[in-house]
Amino acid sequence: MKIAGLQTAGTPGDVPANLQELDEAARRARAGGADLLVTTELFLTGYDIGDAVHDLARTDLLSPARDIARTHGIALVVGAPEHDGGAYYNSAFFIDPDGEVLARHRKTHLFGDLDRAYFTPGDRLTTLVDHAGVRIALLICYDVEFPENVRAAALAGADLVAVPTAQMEPYAFVAEHLIRVRAWENQIYILYVNHDGAEDSLRYVGRSSVVAPSGAVLDSVEHGNHLIHATVDPLTVREARAANPYLTDRRPQLYASPPLPAPEDSHAQ
Amino acid sequence: MKIAGLQTAGTPGDVPANLQELDEAARRARAGGADLLVTTELFLTGYDIGDAVHDLARTDLLSPARDIARTHGIALVVGAPEHDGGAYYNSAFFIDPDGEVLARHRKTHLFGDLDRAYFTPGDRLTTLVDHAGVRIALLICYDVEFPENVRAAALAGADLVAVPTAQMEPYAFVAEHLIRVRAWENQIYILYVNHDGAEDSLRYVGRSSVVAPSGAVLDSVEHGNHLIHATVDPLTVREARAANPYLTDRRPQLYASPPLPAPEDSHAQ
Repeated sequence: MKIAGLQTAGTPGDVPANLQELDEAARRARAGGADLLVTTELFLTGYDIGDAVHDLARTDLLSPARDIARTHGIALVVGAPEHDGGAYYNSAFFIDPDGEVLARHRKTHLFGDLDRAYFTPGDRLTTLVDHAGVRIALLICYDVEFPENVRAAALAGADLVAVPTAQMEPYAFVAEHLIRVRAWENQIYILYVNHDGAEDSLRYVGRSSVVAPSGAVLDSVEHGNHLIHATVDPLTVREARAANPYLTDRRPQLYASPPLPAPEDSHAQ
Repeated sequence: MKIAGLQTAGTPGDVPANLQELDEAARRARAGGADLLVTTELFLTGYDIGDAVHDLARTDLLSPARDIARTHGIALVVGAPEHDGGAYYNSAFFIDPDGEVLARHRKTHLFGDLDRAYFTPGDRLTTLVDHAGVRIALLICYDVEFPENVRAAALAGADLVAVPTAQMEPYAFVAEHLIRVRAWENQIYILYVNHDGAEDSLRYVGRSSVVAPSGAVLDSVEHGNHLIHATVDPLTVREARAANPYLTDRRPQLYASPPLPAPEDSHAQ
């Protein structure tokens, strides 16, 4: 399966402008052979836009994005705020090439005051969807920084983790180093798609990338609005896991143990 | 607390030669102000030495190392095989400046055929010891590649993870990338002390390093027999964890959940 990721500064607070950018990116990604296009965190609205993120969540954000998927015949992962049962979530939606919403992930690990001021955390570590023979796990931004989340995705058989993000300064370390190690330690593909530019108080680090199970960077970009591309092959995942059997060498019975004893109790005999 | 790590090719199978190197390294580390010197995995005997690793484990390997700690007034982490209750373990011993063995870690995650041919795995994820105001967690080589192990150490209050290792080609990715990310995602110091040179079928990658909670490399070496140094400050750990609160932002109740539902069950409503 060919995949693409849209790094962009977007147009904060302007949904029609972001839909127009999505339409154009979907056209280009599909023309390049991609079966899936992944956007940034809260792509449709912008991330650091104050109370507007609540106001916009009350509208039907997804219908035009579903039309775009159907028009171009490409699957989309679209970041958007979600209003459900009186709560707001920082969500990402998987829309198939027929325009059907097949899965929705709600960010489980809220970041700092900004996320907590506006969103309720989700309660499912990651969300899985199968498409074009590839099992995809959805995470959002801070979620991927916790090894527990990507591990859960890998143990559930995911081949690819798709991560819309809004990663700002001074956290470039995550984009530059952590993503490759998450891929390596789980022998899994990761597509990390970031905002670029600035939004209110935030300066984004860009540096979107797609990384192979070997930890090799397949495509990346530093700054600017840009599509990155790669091919995902589940056979590569299986071969990588045979060569580096982290998942089978785990010792889950130990991880479930009570907390470690204090040093007083752990001395050698 | 000042710490040092001894990267070396050692002298495979020759315990007296390795003790002589330890004595000299302990002298130099102490002269440089170090309170702790960490050696490589199975430093006293060598790692890839065939059945000799069992024969040597039956001797009293630690007494001369305890004398060295006492002579120089420095704590040591010494890698050595252990024979106990009919089983052999790939172990590391914490010896205090009085020559007392305060802790012993047995490698829990055995690597490949070589480890499995000779050793029984330990059953404690990491082993803690307090020294000079610093809580130290012991891991051995492959152990540190599993995020679960370093997480357990951090949650148990460790400031520093000391890792004797025998990391060979083609796994330089671990030394070059993974160690920094383990430090960052737990906001903890890591001292990673590797073999260099070659041993039977193995070519070691060297590249020992000591990394700060920020992920910054405090000291490192590519190849050669070499001491690396750093200062460990628990206050830096506390400040780093306040700035990047991964440990408090975890959602342990989700990590303990049953496996993720298959995609058929996880569709959006």
